[in-house]
Amino acid sequence: MSGRPLDVLEASVGDQVTVRLKGGEIYDGVLAGYDQHMNLVLEEVKETHGSDPDEDPDAATPEERGEMTIIRGDNLVSISA
Amino acid sequence: MSGRPLDVLEASVGDQVTVRLKGGEIYDGVLAGYDQHMNLVLEEVKETHGSDPDEDPDAATPEERGEMTIIRGDNLVSISA
Amino acid sequence: MSGRPLDVLEASVGDQVTVRLKGGEIYDGVLAGYDQHMNLVLEEVKETHGSDPDEDPDAATPEERGEMTIIRGDNLVSISA
Amino acid sequence: MSGRPLDVLEASVGDQVTVRLKGGEIYDGVLAGYDQHMNLVLEEVKETHGSDPDEDPDAATPEERGEMTIIRGDNLVSISA
Amino acid sequence: MSGRPLDVLEASVGDQVTVRLKGGEIYDGVLAGYDQHMNLVLEEVKETHGSDPDEDPDAATPEERGEMTIIRGDNLVSISA
Amino acid sequence: MSGRPLDVLEASVGDQVTVRLKGGEIYDGVLAGYDQHMNLVLEEVKETHGSDPDEDPDAATPEERGEMTIIRGDNLVSISA
Amino acid sequence: MSGRPLDVLEASVGDQVTVRLKGGEIYDGVLAGYDQHMNLVLEEVKETHGSDPDEDPDAATPEERGEMTIIRGDNLVSISA
Repeated sequence: MSGRPLDVLEASVGDQVTVRLKGGEIYDGVLAGYDQHMNLVLEEVKETHGSDPDEDPDAATPEERGEMTIIRGDNLVSISA
Repeated sequence: MSGRPLDVLEASVGDQVTVRLKGGEIYDGVLAGYDQHMNLVLEEVKETHGSDPDEDPDAATPEERGEMTIIRGDNLVSISA
Repeated sequence: MSGRPLDVLEASVGDQVTVRLKGGEIYDGVLAGYDQHMNLVLEEVKETHGSDPDEDPDAATPEERGEMTIIRGDNLVSISA
Repeated sequence: MSGRPLDVLEASVGDQVTVRLKGGEIYDGVLAGYDQHMNLVLEEVKETHGSDPDEDPDAATPEERGEMTIIRGDNLVSISA
Repeated sequence: MSGRPLDVLEASVGDQVTVRLKGGEIYDGVLAGYDQHMNLVLEEVKETHGSDPDEDPDAATPEERGEMTIIRGDNLVSISA
Repeated sequence: MSGRPLDVLEASVGDQVTVRLKGGEIYDGVLAGYDQHMNLVLEEVKETHGSDPDEDPDAATPEERGEMTIIRGDNLVSISA
Repeated sequence: MSGRPLDVLEASVGDQVTVRLKGGEIYDGVLAGYDQHMNLVLEEVKETHGSDPDEDPDAATPEERGEMTIIRGDNLVSISA
Protein backbone atom coordinates (compact mmCIF):
# COMPACT_ATOMS: atom_id res chain seq x y z
CA MET A 1 0.00 0.00 0.00
CA SER A 2 3.01 2.29 -0.39
CA GLY A 3 1.73 5.56 -1.80
CA ARG A 4 -1.79 5.33 -0.37
CA PRO A 5 -4.25 7.74 -2.00
CA LEU A 6 -4.75 9.95 1.06
CA ASP A 7 -0.99 10.15 1.66
CA VAL A 8 -0.54 11.35 -1.91
CA LEU A 9 -3.28 13.94 -1.34
CA GLU A 10 -1.59 15.09 1.86
CA ALA A 11 1.70 15.48 0.03
CA SER A 12 -0.06 17.50 -2.69
CA VAL A 13 -1.47 20.23 -0.42
CA GLY A 14 -0.21 23.55 -1.79
CA ASP A 15 0.45 22.08 -5.23
CA GLN A 16 -1.30 22.68 -8.52
CA VAL A 17 -3.68 19.77 -9.26
CA THR A 18 -6.04 18.78 -12.06
CA VAL A 19 -9.35 17.30 -10.92
CA ARG A 20 -11.62 15.41 -13.31
CA LEU A 21 -15.28 14.99 -12.39
CA LYS A 22 -17.89 12.44 -13.44
CA GLY A 23 -19.84 15.14 -15.27
CA GLY A 24 -16.85 15.80 -17.54
CA GLU A 25 -15.73 19.02 -15.88
CA ILE A 26 -12.02 19.59 -15.25
CA TYR A 27 -10.92 21.90 -12.43
CA ASP A 28 -7.36 23.20 -12.21
CA GLY A 29 -6.32 24.81 -8.96
CA VAL A 30 -4.15 24.73 -5.91
CA LEU A 31 -5.11 22.02 -3.43
CA ALA A 32 -5.85 23.81 -0.15
CA GLY A 33 -7.32 20.88 1.76
CA TYR A 34 -9.23 17.61 1.69
CA ASP A 35 -10.90 15.11 4.01
CA GLN A 36 -11.17 11.33 4.20
CA HIS A 37 -14.13 11.31 1.74
CA MET A 38 -11.86 13.02 -0.82
CA ASN A 39 -13.90 16.19 -0.54
CA LEU A 40 -11.44 18.81 -1.77
CA VAL A 41 -10.81 22.51 -1.30
CA LEU A 42 -9.21 24.25 -4.27
CA GLU A 43 -7.94 27.81 -4.57
CA GLU A 44 -7.34 29.83 -7.74
CA VAL A 45 -9.65 27.47 -9.61
CA LYS A 46 -10.17 27.45 -13.34
CA GLU A 47 -12.75 25.15 -14.86
CA THR A 48 -12.73 23.72 -18.35
CA HIS A 49 -14.99 21.14 -19.87
CA GLY A 50 -13.31 18.02 -21.05
CA SER A 51 -13.77 18.46 -24.78
CA ASP A 52 -10.86 18.50 -27.18
CA PRO A 53 -9.77 22.13 -27.77
CA ASP A 54 -9.14 21.38 -31.45
CA GLU A 55 -12.79 20.57 -31.95
CA ASP A 56 -14.37 23.42 -30.07
CA PRO A 57 -12.04 26.12 -28.79
CA ASP A 58 -14.83 27.91 -26.85
CA ALA A 59 -15.60 24.85 -24.78
CA ALA A 60 -12.06 24.81 -23.47
CA THR A 61 -11.94 28.47 -22.48
CA PRO A 62 -11.30 28.36 -18.76
CA GLU A 63 -13.89 30.03 -16.56
CA GLU A 64 -12.66 31.72 -13.38
CA ARG A 65 -14.33 30.71 -10.12
CA GLY A 66 -14.44 32.23 -6.65
CA GLU A 67 -11.56 32.25 -4.20
CA MET A 68 -12.32 28.92 -2.56
CA THR A 69 -14.10 25.99 -4.18
CA ILE A 70 -15.20 22.89 -2.29
CA ILE A 71 -15.64 19.84 -4.51
CA ARG A 72 -17.68 16.96 -3.15
CA GLY A 73 -15.65 13.77 -3.27
CA ASP A 74 -18.28 11.55 -4.81
CA ASN A 75 -18.02 13.51 -8.08
CA LEU A 76 -14.32 12.77 -8.54
CA VAL A 77 -12.91 10.55 -11.23
CA SER A 78 -9.25 11.40 -10.78
CA ILE A 79 -6.82 13.88 -9.31
CA SER A 80 -3.49 14.43 -11.07
CA ALA A 81 -0.71 16.17 -9.18
CA MET B 1 -5.35 18.76 5.58
CA SER B 2 -5.16 22.51 6.23
CA GLY B 3 -8.34 24.04 4.90
CA ARG B 4 -10.56 20.99 5.35
CA PRO B 5 -13.83 21.18 3.44
CA LEU B 6 -16.08 21.44 6.51
CA ASP B 7 -13.85 24.12 8.05
CA VAL B 8 -14.19 26.15 4.87
CA LEU B 9 -17.97 25.68 5.02
CA GLU B 10 -18.01 26.78 8.66
CA ALA B 11 -16.05 29.90 7.76
CA SER B 12 -18.49 30.65 4.94
CA VAL B 13 -21.65 30.77 7.07
CA GLY B 14 -23.26 34.17 6.45
CA ASP B 15 -21.45 34.60 3.14
CA GLN B 16 -22.76 34.60 -0.40
CA VAL B 17 -22.03 31.21 -2.03
CA THR B 18 -22.58 29.61 -5.42
CA VAL B 19 -23.67 25.97 -5.33
CA ARG B 20 -23.50 23.76 -8.41
CA LEU B 21 -25.62 20.61 -8.51
CA LYS B 22 -25.28 17.37 -10.46
CA GLY B 23 -28.44 18.17 -12.41
CA GLY B 24 -26.83 21.36 -13.76
CA GLU B 25 -28.70 23.80 -11.52
CA ILE B 26 -26.78 26.66 -9.92
CA TYR B 27 -28.05 28.18 -6.67
CA ASP B 28 -26.77 31.52 -5.41
CA GLY B 29 -27.58 32.45 -1.86
CA VAL B 30 -26.36 33.16 1.62
CA LEU B 31 -25.12 30.07 3.47
CA ALA B 32 -27.22 29.82 6.62
CA GLY B 33 -26.09 26.38 7.77
CA TYR B 34 -24.84 22.94 6.86
CA ASP B 35 -24.21 19.52 8.37
CA GLN B 36 -21.53 16.85 8.08
CA HIS B 37 -23.21 15.35 4.96
CA MET B 38 -22.85 18.74 3.26
CA ASN B 39 -26.60 19.24 3.36
CA LEU B 40 -26.90 23.02 3.10
CA VAL B 41 -29.34 25.73 4.14
CA LEU B 42 -29.39 28.77 1.88
CA GLU B 43 -31.26 32.05 2.30
CA GLU B 44 -32.16 34.61 -0.37
CA VAL B 45 -31.69 31.94 -3.02
CA LYS B 46 -31.72 32.53 -6.74
CA GLU B 47 -31.51 29.60 -9.11
CA THR B 48 -30.12 29.62 -12.62
CA HIS B 49 -29.51 26.74 -14.92
CA GLY B 50 -25.96 26.26 -15.98
CA SER B 51 -26.25 27.23 -19.63
CA ASP B 52 -24.22 30.00 -21.17
CA PRO B 53 -26.25 33.26 -21.07
CA ASP B 54 -24.94 34.22 -24.53
CA GLU B 55 -26.60 31.19 -26.03
CA ASP B 56 -29.96 31.34 -24.31
CA PRO B 57 -30.67 34.42 -22.21
CA ASP B 58 -33.97 33.02 -20.86
CA ALA B 59 -32.32 29.97 -19.40
CA ALA B 60 -30.12 32.15 -17.24
CA THR B 61 -32.90 34.31 -15.84
CA PRO B 62 -32.72 33.73 -12.12
CA GLU B 63 -35.83 32.35 -10.47
CA GLU B 64 -36.57 33.48 -6.92
CA ARG B 65 -37.14 30.77 -4.31
CA GLY B 66 -38.65 30.74 -0.82
CA GLU B 67 -37.00 32.19 2.26
CA MET B 68 -35.08 29.06 3.26
CA THR B 69 -33.88 26.34 0.92
CA ILE B 70 -32.38 23.06 2.11
CA ILE B 71 -30.17 21.37 -0.49
CA ARG B 72 -29.40 17.69 -0.01
CA GLY B 73 -25.67 17.15 0.04
CA ASP B 74 -25.55 14.23 -2.36
CA ASN B 75 -26.61 16.54 -5.20
CA LEU B 76 -23.63 18.85 -4.80
CA VAL B 77 -20.81 19.16 -7.29
CA SER B 78 -19.14 22.22 -5.83
CA ILE B 79 -19.57 25.19 -3.53
CA SER B 80 -17.70 28.40 -4.32
CA ALA B 81 -17.38 31.03 -1.62
CA MET C 1 -23.53 25.43 11.70
CA SER C 2 -26.29 27.81 12.79
CA GLY C 3 -29.42 26.84 10.89
CA ARG C 4 -28.56 23.18 10.42
CA PRO C 5 -30.67 21.44 7.78
CA LEU C 6 -32.56 19.16 10.19
CA ASP C 7 -33.28 22.08 12.53
CA VAL C 8 -34.78 23.98 9.63
CA LEU C 9 -36.89 20.92 8.74
CA GLU C 10 -38.04 20.63 12.36
CA ALA C 11 -39.07 24.29 12.35
CA SER C 12 -40.98 23.74 9.09
CA VAL C 13 -43.29 20.98 10.35
CA GLY C 14 -46.84 22.17 9.73
CA ASP C 15 -45.74 24.63 7.06
CA GLN C 16 -46.28 24.62 3.32
CA VAL C 17 -43.12 23.41 1.56
CA THR C 18 -41.99 22.88 -2.02
CA VAL C 19 -39.95 19.74 -2.61
CA ARG C 20 -37.91 19.26 -5.79
CA LEU C 21 -36.88 15.74 -6.76
CA LYS C 22 -34.03 14.41 -8.91
CA GLY C 23 -36.51 13.17 -11.50
CA GLY C 24 -37.79 16.73 -12.01
CA GLU C 25 -41.03 16.36 -10.08
CA ILE C 26 -42.10 19.16 -7.73
CA TYR C 27 -44.34 18.36 -4.76
CA ASP C 28 -46.15 21.10 -2.85
CA GLY C 29 -47.66 20.15 0.46
CA VAL C 30 -47.71 20.57 4.20
CA LEU C 31 -44.70 19.00 5.93
CA ALA C 32 -46.13 16.49 8.40
CA GLY C 33 -42.88 14.80 9.40
CA TYR C 34 -39.38 13.72 8.46
CA ASP C 35 -36.50 11.57 9.69
CA GLN C 36 -32.72 11.86 9.78
CA HIS C 37 -32.42 10.52 6.20
CA MET C 38 -34.63 13.41 5.04
CA ASN C 39 -37.42 11.00 4.24
CA LEU C 40 -40.47 13.28 4.35
CA VAL C 41 -44.18 12.99 5.01
CA LEU C 42 -46.34 15.50 3.17
CA GLU C 43 -50.06 16.15 3.48
CA GLU C 44 -52.37 17.86 0.98
CA VAL C 45 -49.82 17.17 -1.75
CA LYS C 46 -50.00 18.53 -5.26
CA GLU C 47 -47.46 17.43 -7.82
CA THR C 48 -46.30 19.38 -10.83
CA HIS C 49 -43.53 18.59 -13.21
CA GLY C 50 -40.81 21.13 -13.37
CA SER C 51 -41.45 22.55 -16.83
CA ASP C 52 -42.14 26.21 -17.43
CA PRO C 53 -45.92 26.82 -17.47
CA ASP C 54 -45.54 29.34 -20.31
CA GLU C 55 -44.19 26.63 -22.57
CA ASP C 56 -46.61 23.85 -21.80
CA PRO C 57 -49.57 24.72 -19.58
CA ASP C 58 -50.73 21.07 -19.32
CA ALA C 59 -47.43 19.92 -17.87
CA ALA C 60 -47.86 22.27 -14.95
CA THR C 61 -51.41 21.25 -14.09
CA PRO C 62 -51.14 19.99 -10.53
CA GLU C 63 -52.24 16.42 -9.89
CA GLU C 64 -53.86 15.68 -6.54
CA ARG C 65 -52.37 12.83 -4.50
CA GLY C 66 -53.57 10.79 -1.53
CA GLU C 67 -53.88 12.10 2.00
CA MET C 68 -50.35 11.21 3.08
CA THR C 69 -47.31 10.96 0.83
CA ILE C 70 -43.96 9.62 1.99
CA ILE C 71 -41.04 10.82 -0.13
CA ARG C 72 -37.79 8.88 0.11
CA GLY C 73 -34.96 11.22 1.05
CA ASP C 74 -32.47 10.06 -1.55
CA ASN C 75 -34.68 11.54 -4.30
CA LEU C 76 -34.55 15.06 -2.90
CA VAL C 77 -32.76 17.94 -4.54
CA SER C 78 -34.13 20.73 -2.37
CA ILE C 79 -36.85 21.72 0.07
CA SER C 80 -38.01 25.33 0.15
CA ALA C 81 -40.01 26.54 3.12
CA MET D 1 -40.85 14.98 13.74
CA SER D 2 -44.52 14.22 14.34
CA GLY D 3 -45.64 11.86 11.60
CA ARG D 4 -42.25 10.26 10.97
CA PRO D 5 -42.07 8.32 7.70
CA LEU D 6 -41.77 4.86 9.28
CA ASP D 7 -44.64 5.59 11.66
CA VAL D 8 -46.82 6.50 8.70
CA LEU D 9 -45.76 3.25 6.98
CA GLU D 10 -46.60 1.27 10.12
CA ALA D 11 -50.04 2.89 10.26
CA SER D 12 -50.59 2.02 6.59
CA VAL D 13 -50.08 -1.76 6.90
CA GLY D 14 -53.22 -3.38 5.53
CA ASP D 15 -54.17 -0.30 3.52
CA GLN D 16 -54.21 0.27 -0.22
CA VAL D 17 -51.10 2.27 -1.24
CA THR D 18 -49.67 3.69 -4.44
CA VAL D 19 -45.91 3.30 -4.84
CA ARG D 20 -43.97 5.31 -7.43
CA LEU D 21 -40.55 4.05 -8.50
CA LYS D 22 -37.54 5.80 -9.99
CA GLY D 23 -37.98 3.89 -13.25
CA GLY D 24 -41.45 5.40 -13.68
CA GLU D 25 -43.43 2.32 -12.66
CA ILE D 26 -46.44 2.71 -10.38
CA TYR D 27 -47.52 -0.20 -8.17
CA ASP D 28 -50.93 -0.23 -6.50
CA GLY D 29 -51.46 -2.81 -3.80
CA VAL D 30 -52.12 -3.56 -0.17
CA LEU D 31 -49.14 -2.87 2.08
CA ALA D 32 -48.35 -6.16 3.81
CA GLY D 33 -45.06 -5.18 5.40
CA TYR D 34 -41.91 -3.09 5.27
CA ASP D 35 -38.51 -2.72 6.96
CA GLN D 36 -36.31 0.16 8.03
CA HIS D 37 -34.80 0.47 4.51
CA MET D 38 -38.32 1.05 3.16
CA ASN D 39 -38.22 -2.30 1.42
CA LEU D 40 -41.92 -3.06 0.99
CA VAL D 41 -44.15 -6.10 0.66
CA LEU D 42 -47.30 -5.56 -1.38
CA GLU D 43 -50.23 -7.91 -1.96
CA GLU D 44 -52.80 -7.80 -4.76
CA VAL D 45 -50.41 -5.70 -6.81
CA LYS D 46 -51.26 -4.02 -10.09
CA GLU D 47 -48.56 -2.22 -12.01
CA THR D 48 -49.06 0.66 -14.40
CA HIS D 49 -46.47 2.78 -16.09
CA GLY D 50 -46.65 6.41 -15.27
CA SER D 51 -47.85 7.74 -18.61
CA ASP D 52 -51.01 9.77 -18.98
CA PRO D 53 -53.92 7.43 -19.90
CA ASP D 54 -55.32 10.09 -22.27
CA GLU D 55 -52.19 9.88 -24.37
CA ASP D 56 -51.73 6.14 -24.54
CA PRO D 57 -54.50 4.00 -23.06
CA ASP D 58 -52.50 0.76 -23.52
CA ALA D 59 -49.63 2.00 -21.42
CA ALA D 60 -51.93 2.47 -18.47
CA THR D 61 -53.51 -0.99 -18.64
CA PRO D 62 -52.68 -2.51 -15.29
CA GLU D 63 -50.72 -5.76 -15.32
CA GLU D 64 -51.49 -8.29 -12.61
CA ARG D 65 -48.53 -9.59 -10.57
CA GLY D 66 -48.03 -12.57 -8.27
CA GLU D 67 -49.49 -12.86 -4.81
CA MET D 68 -46.63 -11.17 -2.96
CA THR D 69 -44.29 -8.56 -4.37
CA ILE D 70 -41.20 -7.32 -2.56
CA ILE D 71 -40.06 -3.88 -3.72
CA ARG D 72 -36.51 -2.85 -2.88
CA GLY D 73 -36.54 0.45 -1.01
CA ASP D 74 -33.84 2.19 -3.00
CA ASN D 75 -36.16 2.27 -6.03
CA LEU D 76 -38.87 4.26 -4.27
CA VAL D 77 -39.76 7.83 -5.06
CA SER D 78 -42.94 8.06 -3.01
CA ILE D 79 -45.64 6.10 -1.26
CA SER D 80 -49.14 7.54 -1.08
CA ALA D 81 -51.60 6.09 1.40
CA MET E 1 -44.26 -4.73 10.10
CA SER E 2 -46.10 -8.02 9.66
CA GLY E 3 -44.78 -9.62 6.49
CA ARG E 4 -41.32 -8.04 6.57
CA PRO E 5 -39.47 -8.29 3.26
CA LEU E 6 -36.77 -10.70 4.47
CA ASP E 7 -39.38 -12.95 6.12
CA VAL E 8 -41.22 -13.15 2.82
CA LEU E 9 -37.94 -14.02 1.08
CA GLU E 10 -37.23 -16.71 3.67
CA ALA E 11 -40.68 -18.20 3.11
CA SER E 12 -40.08 -18.19 -0.65
CA VAL E 13 -36.91 -20.33 -0.63
CA GLY E 14 -37.58 -23.28 -2.91
CA ASP E 15 -40.37 -21.46 -4.76
CA GLN E 16 -40.52 -20.12 -8.31
CA VAL E 17 -39.94 -16.34 -8.27
CA THR E 18 -39.83 -13.55 -10.83
CA VAL E 19 -37.09 -10.98 -10.31
CA ARG E 20 -37.14 -7.63 -12.08
CA LEU E 21 -33.89 -5.68 -12.38
CA LYS E 22 -33.17 -1.98 -12.86
CA GLY E 23 -31.75 -2.67 -16.32
CA GLY E 24 -35.08 -4.10 -17.45
CA GLU E 25 -34.09 -7.78 -17.30
CA ILE E 26 -36.52 -10.29 -15.83
CA TYR E 27 -35.19 -13.52 -14.29
CA ASP E 28 -37.48 -16.43 -13.55
CA GLY E 29 -36.10 -19.19 -11.38
CA VAL E 30 -36.25 -21.09 -8.14
CA LEU E 31 -35.05 -19.10 -5.15
CA ALA E 32 -32.18 -21.09 -3.65
CA GLY E 33 -30.94 -18.50 -1.16
CA TYR E 34 -30.48 -14.85 -0.28
CA ASP E 35 -28.73 -12.62 2.25
CA GLN E 36 -29.58 -9.45 4.15
CA HIS E 37 -28.56 -7.23 1.19
CA MET E 38 -31.15 -9.06 -0.94
CA ASN E 39 -28.38 -10.68 -2.95
CA LEU E 40 -30.17 -13.72 -4.39
CA VAL E 41 -29.26 -17.19 -5.60
CA LEU E 42 -31.54 -18.58 -8.30
CA GLU E 43 -31.58 -22.04 -9.85
CA GLU E 44 -33.08 -23.10 -13.19
CA VAL E 45 -32.98 -19.49 -14.32
CA LYS E 46 -34.52 -18.16 -17.50
CA GLU E 47 -33.99 -14.56 -18.47
CA THR E 48 -36.31 -12.44 -20.57
CA HIS E 49 -36.14 -8.77 -21.30
CA GLY E 50 -39.07 -6.78 -20.15
CA SER E 51 -40.60 -5.90 -23.51
CA ASP E 52 -44.15 -6.80 -24.43
CA PRO E 53 -44.18 -10.13 -26.33
CA ASP E 54 -46.93 -8.81 -28.63
CA GLU E 55 -44.57 -6.14 -29.89
CA ASP E 56 -41.43 -8.18 -30.37
CA PRO E 57 -41.71 -11.92 -29.87
CA ASP E 58 -37.95 -12.45 -30.18
CA ALA E 59 -37.18 -10.14 -27.30
CA ALA E 60 -39.23 -12.30 -24.98
CA THR E 61 -37.61 -15.60 -25.94
CA PRO E 62 -36.17 -16.87 -22.68
CA GLU E 63 -32.46 -17.51 -22.59
CA GLU E 64 -31.23 -20.40 -20.45
CA ARG E 65 -28.52 -19.65 -17.89
CA GLY E 66 -26.11 -21.79 -15.87
CA GLU E 67 -27.11 -23.93 -12.95
CA MET E 68 -26.71 -21.29 -10.25
CA THR E 69 -27.06 -17.54 -10.73
CA ILE E 70 -26.17 -14.99 -8.07
CA ILE E 71 -27.95 -11.66 -8.53
CA ARG E 72 -26.52 -8.66 -6.72
CA GLY E 73 -29.20 -7.06 -4.56
CA ASP E 74 -28.62 -3.48 -5.60
CA ASN E 75 -29.92 -4.30 -9.10
CA LEU E 76 -33.32 -5.45 -7.87
CA VAL E 77 -36.54 -3.58 -8.47
CA SER E 78 -38.95 -6.26 -7.29
CA ILE E 79 -39.34 -9.94 -6.49
CA SER E 80 -42.71 -11.58 -7.05
CA ALA E 81 -43.39 -14.94 -5.45
CA MET F 1 -31.18 -18.86 3.59
CA SER F 2 -29.84 -22.20 2.33
CA GLY F 3 -27.50 -21.45 -0.53
CA ARG F 4 -26.46 -17.96 0.59
CA PRO F 5 -24.79 -15.91 -2.15
CA LEU F 6 -21.32 -15.83 -0.56
CA ASP F 7 -21.44 -19.57 0.12
CA VAL F 8 -22.19 -20.16 -3.54
CA LEU F 9 -19.27 -17.89 -4.48
CA GLU F 10 -16.99 -19.79 -2.10
CA ALA F 11 -18.03 -23.09 -3.67
CA SER F 12 -17.33 -21.65 -7.14
CA VAL F 13 -13.67 -20.73 -6.55
CA GLY F 14 -11.67 -22.51 -9.25
CA ASP F 15 -14.70 -22.88 -11.51
CA GLN F 16 -15.51 -21.20 -14.81
CA VAL F 17 -18.02 -18.37 -14.22
CA THR F 18 -19.85 -15.84 -16.35
CA VAL F 19 -20.08 -12.36 -14.89
CA ARG F 20 -22.52 -9.77 -16.23
CA LEU F 21 -21.89 -6.10 -15.49
CA LYS F 22 -24.20 -3.09 -15.36
CA GLY F 23 -22.48 -1.58 -18.41
CA GLY F 24 -23.45 -4.64 -20.49
CA GLU F 25 -20.03 -6.30 -20.51
CA ILE F 26 -19.80 -10.05 -19.97
CA TYR F 27 -16.61 -11.55 -18.52
CA ASP F 28 -15.93 -15.28 -18.70
CA GLY F 29 -13.12 -16.60 -16.55
CA VAL F 30 -12.03 -18.78 -13.70
CA LEU F 31 -13.03 -17.41 -10.28
CA ALA F 32 -9.80 -17.02 -8.33
CA GLY F 33 -11.17 -15.11 -5.35
CA TYR F 34 -13.73 -12.68 -3.99
CA ASP F 35 -14.50 -10.64 -0.87
CA GLN F 36 -17.62 -9.76 1.08
CA HIS F 37 -18.41 -6.81 -1.26
CA MET F 38 -18.51 -9.29 -4.17
CA ASN F 39 -15.33 -7.80 -5.58
CA LEU F 40 -14.04 -10.66 -7.74
CA VAL F 41 -10.71 -11.91 -9.05
CA LEU F 42 -10.90 -13.73 -12.37
CA GLU F 43 -8.18 -15.57 -14.25
CA GLU F 44 -8.04 -16.46 -17.95
CA VAL F 45 -10.65 -13.78 -18.63
CA LYS F 46 -12.38 -13.21 -21.93
CA GLU F 47 -14.71 -10.29 -22.34
CA THR F 48 -17.63 -10.05 -24.71
CA HIS F 49 -20.24 -7.37 -24.97
CA GLY F 50 -23.75 -8.52 -24.40
CA SER F 51 -25.08 -8.16 -27.93
CA ASP F 52 -26.63 -11.03 -29.83
CA PRO F 53 -23.94 -12.68 -32.02
CA ASP F 54 -26.51 -13.18 -34.82
CA GLU F 55 -26.94 -9.44 -35.11
CA ASP F 56 -23.32 -8.35 -34.97
CA PRO F 57 -20.68 -11.09 -34.98
CA ASP F 58 -17.83 -8.63 -34.35
CA ALA F 59 -19.35 -7.37 -31.14
CA ALA F 60 -19.25 -10.85 -29.69
CA THR F 61 -15.62 -11.57 -30.54
CA PRO F 62 -14.02 -12.20 -27.19
CA GLU F 63 -11.15 -9.96 -26.23
CA GLU F 64 -8.34 -11.50 -24.18
CA ARG F 65 -7.37 -9.73 -20.95
CA GLY F 66 -4.37 -9.89 -18.63
CA GLU F 67 -3.59 -12.75 -16.30
CA MET F 68 -5.58 -11.47 -13.33
CA THR F 69 -8.62 -9.19 -13.47
CA ILE F 70 -10.21 -7.62 -10.41
CA ILE F 71 -13.84 -6.65 -10.93
CA ARG F 72 -15.37 -4.18 -8.51
CA GLY F 73 -18.48 -5.65 -6.93
CA ASP F 74 -20.74 -2.66 -7.40
CA ASN F 75 -20.67 -3.21 -11.18
CA LEU F 76 -22.08 -6.72 -10.98
CA VAL F 77 -25.51 -7.70 -12.17
CA SER F 78 -25.13 -11.45 -11.94
CA ILE F 79 -22.64 -14.30 -11.66
CA SER F 80 -23.52 -17.64 -13.23
CA ALA F 81 -21.54 -20.71 -12.23
CA MET G 1 -11.45 -16.74 -0.86
CA SER G 2 -7.94 -17.61 -2.11
CA GLY G 3 -6.78 -14.67 -4.20
CA ARG G 4 -8.84 -11.99 -2.48
CA PRO G 5 -9.12 -8.76 -4.48
CA LEU G 6 -7.07 -6.62 -2.08
CA ASP G 7 -4.34 -9.28 -1.85
CA VAL G 8 -4.09 -9.25 -5.63
CA LEU G 9 -3.86 -5.44 -5.55
CA GLU G 10 -1.14 -5.63 -2.90
CA ALA G 11 0.82 -8.09 -5.05
CA SER G 12 0.46 -5.76 -8.04
CA VAL G 13 2.09 -2.68 -6.46
CA GLY G 14 4.94 -1.66 -8.74
CA ASP G 15 3.44 -3.49 -11.72
CA GLN G 16 1.92 -2.14 -14.91
CA VAL G 17 -1.89 -2.28 -14.66
CA THR G 18 -4.83 -1.43 -16.89
CA VAL G 19 -7.74 0.25 -15.16
CA ARG G 20 -11.17 0.50 -16.78
CA LEU G 21 -13.61 3.12 -15.50
CA LYS G 22 -17.41 3.35 -15.63
CA GLY G 23 -17.18 6.35 -17.95
CA GLY G 24 -15.33 4.24 -20.53
CA GLU G 25 -11.86 5.65 -19.87
CA ILE G 26 -8.90 3.27 -19.71
CA TYR G 27 -5.83 4.23 -17.69
CA ASP G 28 -2.54 2.38 -18.10
CA GLY G 29 0.11 2.99 -15.48
CA VAL G 30 2.23 1.62 -12.69
CA LEU G 31 0.27 0.89 -9.52
CA ALA G 32 1.90 2.96 -6.80
CA GLY G 33 -0.67 2.41 -4.06
CA TYR G 34 -4.28 1.77 -3.12
CA ASP G 35 -6.58 1.70 -0.09
CA GLN G 36 -9.42 -0.50 1.10
CA HIS G 37 -11.98 1.46 -1.02
CA MET G 38 -9.93 0.55 -4.10
CA ASN G 39 -8.89 4.16 -4.51
CA LEU G 40 -5.72 3.83 -6.58
CA VAL G 41 -2.51 5.77 -7.14
CA LEU G 42 -0.98 5.33 -10.59
CA GLU G 43 2.34 6.62 -11.91
CA GLU G 44 3.39 7.11 -15.53
CA VAL G 45 -0.27 7.13 -16.54
CA LYS G 46 -1.56 7.12 -20.07
CA GLU G 47 -5.26 7.43 -20.72
CA THR G 48 -7.15 6.11 -23.72
CA HIS G 49 -10.84 6.02 -24.32
CA GLY G 50 -12.29 2.61 -24.79
CA SER G 51 -13.19 2.81 -28.46
CA ASP G 52 -11.85 0.39 -31.02
CA PRO G 53 -8.67 1.81 -32.59
CA ASP G 54 -9.72 0.43 -36.00
CA GLU G 55 -12.78 2.62 -35.97
CA ASP G 56 -11.29 5.87 -34.79
CA PRO G 57 -7.52 5.99 -34.43
CA ASP G 58 -7.57 9.46 -32.82
CA ALA G 59 -9.79 8.33 -29.99
CA ALA G 60 -7.21 5.75 -28.99
CA THR G 61 -4.24 8.11 -28.99
CA PRO G 62 -2.98 7.96 -25.42
CA GLU G 63 -2.90 11.23 -23.54
CA GLU G 64 -0.07 11.73 -21.04
CA ARG G 65 -1.06 12.71 -17.50
CA GLY G 66 0.82 14.14 -14.53
CA GLU G 67 3.29 12.25 -12.42
CA MET G 68 0.81 10.87 -9.92
CA THR G 69 -2.86 10.18 -10.57
CA ILE G 70 -5.33 9.24 -7.85
CA ILE G 71 -8.38 7.38 -9.16
CA ARG G 72 -11.42 7.23 -6.93
CA GLY G 73 -12.45 3.63 -6.36
CA ASP G 74 -16.14 4.03 -7.05
CA ASN G 75 -15.37 4.72 -10.73
CA LEU G 76 -13.62 1.40 -11.28
CA VAL G 77 -15.00 -1.39 -13.40
CA SER G 78 -11.91 -3.58 -13.48
CA ILE G 79 -8.18 -3.68 -12.91
CA SER G 80 -6.07 -6.05 -15.00
CA ALA G 81 -2.56 -6.85 -13.88
